[in-house]
Amino acid sequence: MLPFDKLLPTDKTSAQPVYQQIANAMIRHIQSGLFTPGMALPGTRELAGLLNLHRKTAIAAYDELAAQGWITAIPRKGFNVTHILPEVKPRRWAQKPQDLSFREKMAAPFYILHKTGFPAPALLPIPPRLIIDDGHPDDRLAPIDLLGREYRGRLKSAAVRRQVSASLVAGSPRLREALVSWLAGTRGLQAQVSNILVTHGAQMSIYIAANLLLKAGDAVIVAEPGYFVANEVFHHLGANILRVPIDEHGIDVDRVEKLCRQHPTRMLYVIPHHHHPTTVTLSPERRMRLLELAEKFNFAIVEDDYDYDFHYSSSPYLPLASGNHGNRVVYIGSFSKSLSRSIRVGFMVGPEDFTAQAVYLRRLIELKGDNNMEDTLAALILNGDISRHLKKVNKIYETRRNHLCQLLDTRLSGIVSYRKPSGGMAIWTSFAPHIPLPDLTAKALRQGLYLSDTRLYNTHQTNYNATRIGFASLSEPEMEEAIDILAHCAQ
Amino acid sequence: MLPFDKLLPTDKTSAQPVYQQIANAMIRHIQSGLFTPGMALPGTRELAGLLNLHRKTAIAAYDELAAQGWITAIPRKGFNVTHILPEVKPRRWAQKPQDLSFREKMAAPFYILHKTGFPAPALLPIPPRLIIDDGHPDDRLAPIDLLGREYRGRLKSAAVRRQVSASLVAGSPRLREALVSWLAGTRGLQAQVSNILVTHGAQMSIYIAANLLLKAGDAVIVAEPGYFVANEVFHHLGANILRVPIDEHGIDVDRVEKLCRQHPTRMLYVIPHHHHPTTVTLSPERRMRLLELAEKFNFAIVEDDYDYDFHYSSSPYLPLASGNHGNRVVYIGSFSKSLSRSIRVGFMVGPEDFTAQAVYLRRLIELKGDNNMEDTLAALILNGDISRHLKKVNKIYETRRNHLCQLLDTRLSGIVSYRKPSGGMAIWTSFAPHIPLPDLTAKALRQGLYLSDTRLYNTHQTNYNATRIGFASLSEPEMEEAIDILAHCAQ
Repeated sequence: MLPFDKLLPTDKTSAQPVYQQIANAMIRHIQSGLFTPGMALPGTRELAGLLNLHRKTAIAAYDELAAQGWITAIPRKGFNVTHILPEVKPRRWAQKPQDLSFREKMAAPFYILHKTGFPAPALLPIPPRLIIDDGHPDDRLAPIDLLGREYRGRLKSAAVRRQVSASLVAGSPRLREALVSWLAGTRGLQAQVSNILVTHGAQMSIYIAANLLLKAGDAVIVAEPGYFVANEVFHHLGANILRVPIDEHGIDVDRVEKLCRQHPTRMLYVIPHHHHPTTVTLSPERRMRLLELAEKFNFAIVEDDYDYDFHYSSSPYLPLASGNHGNRVVYIGSFSKSLSRSIRVGFMVGPEDFTAQAVYLRRLIELKGDNNMEDTLAALILNGDISRHLKKVNKIYETRRNHLCQLLDTRLSGIVSYRKPSGGMAIWTSFAPHIPLPDLTAKALRQGLYLSDTRLYNTHQTNYNATRIGFASLSEPEMEEAIDILAHCAQ
Repeated sequence: MLPFDKLLPTDKTSAQPVYQQIANAMIRHIQSGLFTPGMALPGTRELAGLLNLHRKTAIAAYDELAAQGWITAIPRKGFNVTHILPEVKPRRWAQKPQDLSFREKMAAPFYILHKTGFPAPALLPIPPRLIIDDGHPDDRLAPIDLLGREYRGRLKSAAVRRQVSASLVAGSPRLREALVSWLAGTRGLQAQVSNILVTHGAQMSIYIAANLLLKAGDAVIVAEPGYFVANEVFHHLGANILRVPIDEHGIDVDRVEKLCRQHPTRMLYVIPHHHHPTTVTLSPERRMRLLELAEKFNFAIVEDDYDYDFHYSSSPYLPLASGNHGNRVVYIGSFSKSLSRSIRVGFMVGPEDFTAQAVYLRRLIELKGDNNMEDTLAALILNGDISRHLKKVNKIYETRRNHLCQLLDTRLSGIVSYRKPSGGMAIWTSFAPHIPLPDLTAKALRQGLYLSDTRLYNTHQTNYNATRIGFASLSEPEMEEAIDILAHCAQ
């Protein structure tokens, strides 16, 4: 309820009768849009109590307003603001955006996103029937029921225990401890609790790491094409983004070395498994070279290994962070990929002093994360549910990858080219130049199929005319239907 | 499982027998700490399969390792790395923090937090029996069961529907729409969906707003004493923090005007209800003055109204953002206060173009929030559960406030002074100079009572020797026990 006593001030010493003062104040509020059409008003007894007046005064005010047509009496219910009012102009935000010079700073940082006009599926007026995403897990396969039960139970017991966790911004102690053994057992990563910061996912880890490492003007090396949201972070921080080509063995390390000789380089951002967007895996030789270069030229490596848990053709390579990294590597992972996008929990592993600073920065961004969800994940790690889930979906995703390759070979033959990825959840698919993706995706959308036109990857004056076809989240019949629509639209 | 095939490369053309190559590689991994003491190794059949070798070769390798004492055969279980090993030195992170010149930037920003040595309750070796917090809701009273059930159900159905929400970084559409009517009905705030950004709480809203408004060197006006975590954000951004005294009617607006005449001012941060820490409410006259000054001197007001829903002595004042704000006000609220600290959802309301930029920045920080929790809250707003909850706890918290005042008057008479707040969840309590808070809180902790010594408020060369005593989260018997301990320790 609105604070009517504050909104309807009365002055008994005034020449104007109090009932009239109330009526006039109400009219002003209706005219300003604060009291909206149809809004219920306090009953006369309630209003009299709120304003500390005789009830007769409240009745007189409402009689006046009803007589003027501002309010309507609803039998046995009370009074509402009349639905049809003469020319009400509610105060709105952003009526005059042009005269707001105090926001002059804002225009600059976010130029990249304005370049694409293709809407995200959730913002389309009619939701598409089929969605090819750029490599998401299939939420239908996730142990959501287990997780939901565990979460709910922990929420209840946390409330009863009156758990004090204001200082747990680094993540719940249970999850950080579970991650120590999980990271050692799956990735050979010898971290301690003090090396680990729990975040809301890989993106927050990138944001925090880059904020700590990069000042305006600092050089950061990225692969081209690359993960554009990470590049936006570096751009937002005013960094000098140096782009290095990527081939089938990963980022071109000779070019990295050449750049380092030309520019003092502060940071290199690398996705070692299934680079985004091109899905290549960084070779062991280049991993060694990158570590040597980091040492030689004194830069930090931010290793975004979000896809480590999904490798089909062979086993994955151990992270750079598990090698002889000389405390120069910050390692990033996420449960949004390995479980479900509904789970917004990831982690960042780094040198102890770096992690301590990262914890402070995270506290400025958000006092603490969802410690209850973090405890839930810890329980699922410790009882083996996550390992079992990964084993199960790796088999399913491998089958789906193979199925997509077969569909591309048979139904889009001559139209697309691609390299089969050794893991991950998507295939980077190049379309023939005579089939521009913006046209194709617009046509497909009219048939109920959403596919991003990935113009966002077309940075640096290159039109790749390529897109990521996510295979993990679609069943085989769904994928067949989707590829058939593309084949039809490409004709 | 570690990628044993990658870790144990074999070369059949080498002069060294393959079993010996495997054994040597394993020894290296044990020595480096990658294979940890007690770690289970693959069985001989599994290892042979992984490495594509005859099983006899795997058996020979394990025999060699067992003979050397590196591994132990566990009957009917397989092989483990031996528990007691000679001098294993695992590679650890942060062994040589001194030679990490690439992190030179980090030391600067986070100076404030280093000033206090008093640990947070969750980090104490023995959890305290009683905790006086600085003004948290009582999670035991929150509709956690309703919320947990709703959350779990939505998690399941979202997975089934394969909801695509990658673009919902601004918040779930359901919650943003629910907030439009909630903000109008409770605060007279005429916002539209495009004015609203859902965040993880007030802190994230402050962080995002300040990032958009402040460049290094920009002047920001805050009250002194003030909310130190907000000040840390401004400091982190390199802003010039101008401190203005606060009295019983709120921030001193004459001093604000004076400062604006001296410095071009970009932003003012204000907590209009129950200022943190002193709990005063900003008077209506000063609200008007602030809006006039913002217009006159062209600065933005960031209005952190986290405590609007908790007002006992009278009804609350409408937000500055509901007045004639000329698009200069950014309004901040949170469900972590109004429901439970387990719920990490808040919101920020601002001009449309500002909010659009805030959405982009939030996407760099985190691809999206917990849309499932956001939908859960929307359901609880729409079905009235949140209103009912607020009505209930307002009565309880009012009683607890009065009870605490009575305890302070009777049991700590002559030791403390305070002003009874008109709402909120804490009383700003000044202790007599002969009772220094660091001593008192250390003594109390030995008796099982945690109370922050709030040295964090002692910025700006002032020792307030005052602390916030949160009354909302303690039952009356708990509060009596807590105050008795303080009285005892103050003797």
